[in-house]
Amino acid sequence: MSTFTIKRLAILGLGLIGGSLALAARKAKIAQEIIGYGRSEKNLLQAQQLGAIDHYSLSVTAAVKDADIVVIAVPVNAIKSLLQSIKSELKADAILTDVGSVKQSIMKDVEEVFGKDYSQFVPAHPIAGSEKSGIAAAQADLFVKHKVVITPMTQTSSQACAAVRLLWAATGADVVEMSAQRHDDYLALTSHLPHLLAYSFMDTLAASVEVQAMLHYAAGGFRDFTRLAASDPVMWHDIFMANKTALLQQLESFCQQVEKLTAAIAQNDSAKLLGVLQSAKNLRDQFTLVNKN
Amino acid sequence: MSTFTIKRLAILGLGLIGGSLALAARKAKIAQEIIGYGRSEKNLLQAQQLGAIDHYSLSVTAAVKDADIVVIAVPVNAIKSLLQSIKSELKADAILTDVGSVKQSIMKDVEEVFGKDYSQFVPAHPIAGSEKSGIAAAQADLFVKHKVVITPMTQTSSQACAAVRLLWAATGADVVEMSAQRHDDYLALTSHLPHLLAYSFMDTLAASVEVQAMLHYAAGGFRDFTRLAASDPVMWHDIFMANKTALLQQLESFCQQVEKLTAAIAQNDSAKLLGVLQSAKNLRDQFTLVNKN
Repeated sequence: MSTFTIKRLAILGLGLIGGSLALAARKAKIAQEIIGYGRSEKNLLQAQQLGAIDHYSLSVTAAVKDADIVVIAVPVNAIKSLLQSIKSELKADAILTDVGSVKQSIMKDVEEVFGKDYSQFVPAHPIAGSEKSGIAAAQADLFVKHKVVITPMTQTSSQACAAVRLLWAATGADVVEMSAQRHDDYLALTSHLPHLLAYSFMDTLAASVEVQAMLHYAAGGFRDFTRLAASDPVMWHDIFMANKTALLQQLESFCQQVEKLTAAIAQNDSAKLLGVLQSAKNLRDQFTLVNKN
Repeated sequence: MSTFTIKRLAILGLGLIGGSLALAARKAKIAQEIIGYGRSEKNLLQAQQLGAIDHYSLSVTAAVKDADIVVIAVPVNAIKSLLQSIKSELKADAILTDVGSVKQSIMKDVEEVFGKDYSQFVPAHPIAGSEKSGIAAAQADLFVKHKVVITPMTQTSSQACAAVRLLWAATGADVVEMSAQRHDDYLALTSHLPHLLAYSFMDTLAASVEVQAMLHYAAGGFRDFTRLAASDPVMWHDIFMANKTALLQQLESFCQQVEKLTAAIAQNDSAKLLGVLQSAKNLRDQFTLVNKN
């Protein structure tokens, strides 16, 4: 049992992230009781069997009742109606937090439902995941040495912030704070754009008449490059829509880089092409050094 | 010792592919003697120490002397001058083959140097690799269960073809034949385009003012998506230039798919966006089934 413990932790949505958080919280013994909510009883039962949660409810109002910390881990577009359902059911001092990949749109949802004075919401985003989804893919060590970004609002209580920090620190994550706008701009480039490109690449392949034959001539590089396109379409639909402005801006920058490279190839400009490829490789090699994994 | 053995196998270029072929040939005992050529003595020494080659020469003419099979494993743009150097040194019945990622441009180089009647060249491409390069990254099992595509020319001797087939079969590869044009079209989409996109993506990141900070907020998805951009710039410069027409055509198709997806996001067309993402995921899931690795 750690020094700080949560009496009752409710996790709404037992997918890869919610499920992994439950497993990690359990392992760290940071919560005396973990209750799960979800739409699929099969998934919740599996979460219970895996020891991720103590019990579950198919009613979100029942799930959040008496909870000290409520973690929202459902797709971004499902958050607002969920907030409306739980608003009157939360304890007055309950802390509300989320795990969404975009922060500004979710903060707007919270303000619209709870009002601008509501100080108990702590926007958070664990930067970890995989193309797999569901409780079956959950891992207790998913967040170890991964960044969790907290983007406090001006009205966010510092005590609520501290509690959410402790929850994530218990999972082995490295908790950092930044503004929601900076978070959304960063993620648009480092995560949302790669997903969009991987999906678009697979669509290009799907549009080819010889796609079935081609799949047999793709190797490891293809596998890694396209892995993101195996991610949950509903989740990514929501993220693309919620971070539209930043994402489309980064996409424009990307298209400019592609044009630069295309022009160098079309014009047989070897020096330019080589320079562009070398600078890309240099940055990728630097990333490898920064993230030794 | 296998039924079929090569008396003297010369491998020109001891990088990832040439080095792995040497190690695989050694393991399969398909060659009585393996000689290496390269420009870096340090690399050749390492290849010898690893047991990949019996000996080496820094002179390509010396390396191909008396060789029964000569494998060209240097970057695509270095092939033509190498062909000119070895032309008068090859045994009359020596078999010449390559490992290049494009086939039509290399076949053109061979015809220009050796003439249109030359029947001893067998164009080949092992579809295996990694973003790593050099002999240090070589592995004896790199080609196991990987496709090796042979694209015979009308003048190619069927006996030469059979010998190259046996060499690659000994490495554990699955050898298939197709036309050089089909090969180049397939690879433009399944390999060359992903490399171009990964390089362009890293260039987009490099152009951002906050790139250093952002590198710390990138996770596993980013790592896999960008791995191709760590590949050797010289090698990929050559491939992009050599397969320019097919590559730029596939890039155009890709840009159309990106526009489709962008329009769906910009116009809040949820049904369309979800459909596009779902079809991309379906194909990616199918790839996973086809390539259970």
